[in-house]
Amino acid sequence: MGMPLEVNTMIVTKGKEKRVSDNFFELEKAGYRIYPIDVPVEVRTTKESETNGIAVPLKLIWEDNKTIITYELISLNSSN
Amino acid sequence: MGMPLEVNTMIVTKGKEKRVSDNFFELEKAGYRIYPIDVPVEVRTTKESETNGIAVPLKLIWEDNKTIITYELISLNSSN
Amino acid sequence: MGMPLEVNTMIVTKGKEKRVSDNFFELEKAGYRIYPIDVPVEVRTTKESETNGIAVPLKLIWEDNKTIITYELISLNSSN
Amino acid sequence: MGMPLEVNTMIVTKGKEKRVSDNFFELEKAGYRIYPIDVPVEVRTTKESETNGIAVPLKLIWEDNKTIITYELISLNSSN
Repeated sequence: MGMPLEVNTMIVTKGKEKRVSDNFFELEKAGYRIYPIDVPVEVRTTKESETNGIAVPLKLIWEDNKTIITYELISLNSSN
Repeated sequence: MGMPLEVNTMIVTKGKEKRVSDNFFELEKAGYRIYPIDVPVEVRTTKESETNGIAVPLKLIWEDNKTIITYELISLNSSN
Repeated sequence: MGMPLEVNTMIVTKGKEKRVSDNFFELEKAGYRIYPIDVPVEVRTTKESETNGIAVPLKLIWEDNKTIITYELISLNSSN
Repeated sequence: MGMPLEVNTMIVTKGKEKRVSDNFFELEKAGYRIYPIDVPVEVRTTKESETNGIAVPLKLIWEDNKTIITYELISLNSSN
């Protein structure tokens, strides 16, 4: 009996993030995923795209084989 | 940079669970914890106590260095 | 970028375990899997079979999309 | 009953890495730690130091409350 999950070191939005307020965003992903809470990670639109910026994951909800991550964008890629 | 977490194979309530409805309960635990979603696990009041029954974790929320687990109690220990 | 893994609360041998010595066994499983080290878990031949006994995972090796677990069998199901 | 572990998104060597061959290194860390296998991560000497380069974790061994990671250094920081 096991639970599959995925350890992620980057937030890939595919443009589906929703702004909650200011620099806080919410994103739903398929499956159960670990994003390291309080650890800064890159945000990209796709896996292969340039970095959009750096974010800190703040909250994870795992339910119904989905993950909802809340993150704060702490810096934007200056070349954007 | 790392995120500490704990993998749990049992729900230890310390009597702090809250009934949400019917057989559904919510419990707050310190730190970030994985309880295997959809996998039946034992429920105990303390680590050393007898089994209260079997529950299925349904939802996990990780935030502010706490975990809120929602579980459904699917069987009660008949000796209780 | 992510790494898939599976959290396991039971050792399912499918009869492929190898005795290393005395009560110590080694088992290779597909994919990256977490078995809780130092936490007693059930051992079964298949997911649906009766419990063979209780074991304590002692060591995990993750490489080439496989997991090698070493465990000590600490009790045998008396009905076997 | 639980197993504590840490999810890491970066390899911090503290100068304790051992070269196994060519660009392959081995490093022992305290506790059980997940480094994402096959996912490129930064290598630093200390948490706060500049990046030494990028490495790909290839193998993890968890035993006796220690983790041994094997990684391949795939690029060096050009400013070093």
